[in-house]
This record gives sequence, C-alpha cells and structure tokens, in this order.
Amino acid sequence: MKNFTYHNPVKIIFGKGSIARLKNLIAIGQKILLTYGGGSIKTNGVYDQVISALAKHSRVEFAGIEPNPRYKTLMKAVKIAQAEKINFILSVGGGSVLDGSKFIAAAMHYQGEDAWDIPASRARVARATPLGCVLTLPATGSEMNANAVISRDSTQEKLAFYSPLVYPQFSILDPQTTFSLSARQTANGVVDAFVHIMEQYLTYPAAATVQDRQAEAILLALLDIGPKVMAEPDNYDHRADLMWAATQALNGVIGCGVPGDWATHSIGHELTAFYGIDHAQSLAVVLPALLRQQNKQKWEKLLQYGERVWQIRDGSEETRVDLAIEKTELFFRSLGVGTRLQDYRIEADGLERIGRRIFERNGKVGERGDIGAEEIDAILRSALV
Amino acid sequence: MKNFTYHNPVKIIFGKGSIARLKNLIAIGQKILLTYGGGSIKTNGVYDQVISALAKHSRVEFAGIEPNPRYKTLMKAVKIAQAEKINFILSVGGGSVLDGSKFIAAAMHYQGEDAWDIPASRARVARATPLGCVLTLPATGSEMNANAVISRDSTQEKLAFYSPLVYPQFSILDPQTTFSLSARQTANGVVDAFVHIMEQYLTYPAAATVQDRQAEAILLALLDIGPKVMAEPDNYDHRADLMWAATQALNGVIGCGVPGDWATHSIGHELTAFYGIDHAQSLAVVLPALLRQQNKQKWEKLLQYGERVWQIRDGSEETRVDLAIEKTELFFRSLGVGTRLQDYRIEADGLERIGRRIFERNGKVGERGDIGAEEIDAILRSALV
Repeated sequence: MKNFTYHNPVKIIFGKGSIARLKNLIAIGQKILLTYGGGSIKTNGVYDQVISALAKHSRVEFAGIEPNPRYKTLMKAVKIAQAEKINFILSVGGGSVLDGSKFIAAAMHYQGEDAWDIPASRARVARATPLGCVLTLPATGSEMNANAVISRDSTQEKLAFYSPLVYPQFSILDPQTTFSLSARQTANGVVDAFVHIMEQYLTYPAAATVQDRQAEAILLALLDIGPKVMAEPDNYDHRADLMWAATQALNGVIGCGVPGDWATHSIGHELTAFYGIDHAQSLAVVLPALLRQQNKQKWEKLLQYGERVWQIRDGSEETRVDLAIEKTELFFRSLGVGTRLQDYRIEADGLERIGRRIFERNGKVGERGDIGAEEIDAILRSALV
Repeated sequence: MKNFTYHNPVKIIFGKGSIARLKNLIAIGQKILLTYGGGSIKTNGVYDQVISALAKHSRVEFAGIEPNPRYKTLMKAVKIAQAEKINFILSVGGGSVLDGSKFIAAAMHYQGEDAWDIPASRARVARATPLGCVLTLPATGSEMNANAVISRDSTQEKLAFYSPLVYPQFSILDPQTTFSLSARQTANGVVDAFVHIMEQYLTYPAAATVQDRQAEAILLALLDIGPKVMAEPDNYDHRADLMWAATQALNGVIGCGVPGDWATHSIGHELTAFYGIDHAQSLAVVLPALLRQQNKQKWEKLLQYGERVWQIRDGSEETRVDLAIEKTELFFRSLGVGTRLQDYRIEADGLERIGRRIFERNGKVGERGDIGAEEIDAILRSALV
C-alpha cells in the first residue's frame, strides 16, 4: 500500500425530505448565490423546496449552467457573484452545476489574469467562497469530492481541477429528486459511477486488500442496482442505492493508497470536447477498448475483477480476461449506453487529434504512464464499430 | 435505506514514516498534553519519533493510561491538563489511550459535578480540547470516530459516550508501529474489527445494497488478512491492511442508513467490567452465542452473510445459517481467541448480573429492541462451554 492522506470534510445529509434542512445549514446573513441548470428543478418541485427552506435568506439566482459547464457561462456568474458580494454558493442540480459552482467559488478570488488558468495551467486556488449543494443527479461524485471539470467552447477543451477549498461544506442527497431523471440520465449515472471505480481499481496489484474489496463492493452493488433502477425509476430504494453508490464511488476512499489510471477519463473528456457526446457515453466507449489494449499491463487485476465481480472462474486466463471485458461492455449496452463510436456517428477522421492533444498536455497517461498518442489512437480505432 | 447524516472530519495520515509529519500538524504555541499507556512506545521507538517531531513544541506528559482506561486515572490527567492550561491533546497508543484522551478532552471542560456523568448519564459535551493521535494498535476504530469507552473500578462499570467534539483532528497511522504487537493483541484487533462490522451489518435487510456490500468487503478482507498477519507479524503489507481494515470498520460509513445491533458490545463490556477479560475476547464469546440465540430475527442476513462472506450455497436454510455462525466462531478460534466463557475460567455463578444491569440501564437492546435480561442470560449460558 502506498502512503496516503485522506481528509474529506463534506457533511452528507441523505434521505427523504432532507432539502428542508437547508434552513439551518446556511447562516442567516450569508448572501447566497443560488446556481442551477436548465430549469428542470422548477418542474420537479426541487426549486420550490429550496426556496421554501431559504425563505429568510438573502439570495441571488444564476440559472443556465449547462451540462459540461462552460467557462463563458461561469465567468458571467463570477461577475455577478463579485458585484453582489456573495459569500455562499448553493448549487442545486447535478454534477455539472456543482462543478461549475466550484469553479465560480474559486474564480471569484483568482488574482491572475484569466481564471481559465485554474484548470488549464493548474494555477493554485488560494481562496474559494464556501459552497453547498442539493444534488439531483447521481453520477459524478462531485458532491463528496474537491474535483471539478470545466469546458471551453472556443478551444474545444474540457479540463479538470482540484482544490481542497472547493469541498462542499454540505451536500443534501434526497433520492426523491431523482425520480424525474430520464432513462438516459439514469443509465449515464450508473456508467459514470462504474467507471470511476474502475479507474481506481483496475490497475495493478498494490497490496491493498481492503481497498480492492471496497471497490469490488460498489461494482457489485452497481451490477445489482443498474437493471433495477432502469426497470423501476420510481422505486425509492433503487434510487437511494444508486445515489449512495455514485457518491461512494468517487469520494476518495477506494483510491486511498492505490495507483489510479484515469486514462479513460482523459480520453473521454476529449471525445466530449470535440464531439459533444455525454460524459458517460464517452466512458462507455473508451473503457472496454482501453482494457483490451492494456490487458497485458492489467492482467492480474482483470483476472481478479473477473472472478470477484463477474464470478468468472473457468477457462484459460486469456478466456477469463476477455470475458471480464466483454461482460463489462455488455453491461453498459444493457443499460442502453452505446459502447462504440459508431453509436454516436463518430468516424475515424480526426480522431488522431485526441491522442496528440492529451500527450501534449499531460505526456503519457495511465497508471504506468505508458499510454501515449499512439496507444490512444489505437484504443479509439478499436472502438469505432 | 433510512435517512442519515454523515460527517467525519478526521484527517488520516497513513504510511511509513508518517509520525514525522506531526511537526506541522500541531501549531507551535499550542501547549500539548502527550498521553500514552504503559510505556511500550518507549521500547518500540514510537516515543522517540514523536518527541523528535515535537522538538519545538511545548508539552506535558501523562503516562499510564491502562487498557480499558479508568476514570480515576483519567481524572488525574484532567487536573493536570487544567492546571497546565493544555490546549491540545496528543494521544500516542492504541484505542484505550485514545478513548481515555477523548474523555480527558471533554472532562476538562465539564461544568457539572462529576464528569462520570458523560458516559453514565449521557451528559452533554459542550466543549472539548482539540486532539490528535498516533495510533499503534489497529482494533477499535477510535482513530476515525467520535466514540470512547471508559471504565470505573469502584462500580465495575464500562460505559461509552459519543460527541462530535471528540473526533480527532488528525490520526497518524504508521503500520510499522504495530510490528511489535503480541499475537494476542494482533488477534484481538482482527476480532474487534470483525465484530464492529457485524454489529452494523448482521441485523435485518434494510434496502442498503451499497452498505451491505461495503460491510461484506471489509469482512472478506479480514478473513484474508487475519491468518496472514498472524503468520507474518513483520510483513508491512499485512500490518497495513489490518490497520486500514480496522479504521474502515468503525468510521461510520458502513453504518449509514442501516439499523445497528450493538448488543454484543453491551454484553461484552459487562464481561470486561466484571471479569477483566480483553474487549475482543468478550466479543468473540458473545457474538456467536448471540447469533445463535437471535438466528430467527437475523435469518435473512445470516443467509446473505453465509453466501457472500463464506461462500455457503448448499444445504437447507437451517444448515447454512448454522454453518455461517460456526465458521465465524472457528475463525476467531483459529486466531487463538477463545469463544467460550470456560476459556477464560468464567463460570455460571453471577452471570445473571449482566443481563439485569444492561436492562436496568438501557432497557432491551439489539436492532429490534428484543434482547432483555432473560435473553442475555440465555446467550451467556449457551456460551459457557
């Protein structure tokens, strides 16, 4: 096991009716920037619950944070937040609204020339406005971590940043808010959580008996939850299970003391930046192709994954490794998420930009640092049809 | 799943050489009370590492906190801490030293007549001195929770208290500090962690797919780690695995949104209070007997536990339930921990005090509140030989 530090100060408030607790979570006298997305919270009752809980609080609203939140949109919010002397940001929505809010929280105080430096040049976040969230879409895990991913149209970029200053002070998770999600959003959430776990687990053995079992535990839970939540979207238990699984998948626990891969995310972000496909769709395409391409480097963990998650015990090692990857891909497809580029009408032309750009920015990626431009190109080409 | 709040602010610093990081974890100018136990830290090098890291800090030492820390001992420390105007407590040792330090931290500021009220009458902890720990014995999970258990000789009592004010600010876990533990201490740690998980898991189904899998994950890890760490006490990987397993077993995560039993602990604490046996020994005696006594109420989870943790898939339900409990008991015995009262020369006479006292203090216990004095008596009598 590698040495590590783990410190996650987020307060999770989970369950039916928990939005009402907002009232006592933010001090009266704070000036709140209430951030949200395209307005679905106004049709599903979440907005009304939030406003009712904050009846005595002073607030300004900023609507219209889009999926894969845009730098340009967020900088408008930054201007408003500065002008209004906002001292608390409340994000109401999914991971995109929350990631966008984390960026606003940090960019408000950025002293450099351009806050885009925070994701693009890993400029240090020296200060951030405190924030909290009401989560309405289980997927990204952003509600219990200090990561955010921001996109920029003008350069077709999608980049991440991390700062312990953007941990939410609290996150309210009421599974009832997720009943109105579409099948596509729900399936995307399952895939996103699944791949978050795989990025931290499917690398090489690192003498981490507990973390391996913990990762496998959430994978097994997702295999169980996925079909159930798709079949019964109004079932509270399934919605609650999915919401908690997505949080646990990326709150840092299973990543303690082990190597991380994250190449699937690097490549997936580029697919979204260039082609606009959903984040989870990009992951569903890249992960199986990457596991096949890197199977020799990941051999031992693929065998372990096959046995413990998919109960694959028979056949040669080759057969078991292939089957584990095959089953992973079929699981994504069974949820209705395409796993080949042709499912999204993406063709071979232009794919080479992706590997080149990742290499230029980050060098070789993956847990062994052996995935360069050529390997990325091979992964994407193998995922065409 | 039940509604829940989860908020665990402890910073974990894990790994080889991490004691040196103490230097920057406590502000210069704080006056530290350094608490420890019987002095084993002076022979295994831990004390020297701590003192070296704190060379520039002002500190007072309080040694001699015993296993099952005593109220009388701790009140001496409280007097010293008050007189010395201590504003940080650093616990160096196992769960007993840390639990004792949590009590000192709270008792220093207790305004009532007698700080024993904190565990005995659940008197509110309104203030506590900040504390941190260097852990040297994986077992209790106290390093990442806000619980403590204190004993009192004069009344033969052993009682717990909880306050979010006694979460350690940080806990340093260097597995190397555990190489010098005896086989008995090591085995006790495995059993203690195992039973902590069972108390949160082996109740009744509560639509908690993720938490069940997470609990099973740490149980499976302990089945793997237990024999290895006993066979190779100087193997860093096994020591690290055990240390992290014990922390994860009782940091609140697997208890989110599910019922808890804790009757084994209630009964075990009385066994220790009356007969002086180790905490883990008491748990190893009570758990199998309680599972047998309560098997009807725990039927579904016992079947699930048998299948997922012990791979018991064949035979009638009765056979599988019996086998799951049998295997649990044999696991404890395989580590060298006795599971019957006769292993500790405890006889039938006087056992009836235990059920009576638990019932008088807490009423009926267990996840269904159906374990009263009679049931406790039956459990203990069934564990005699």
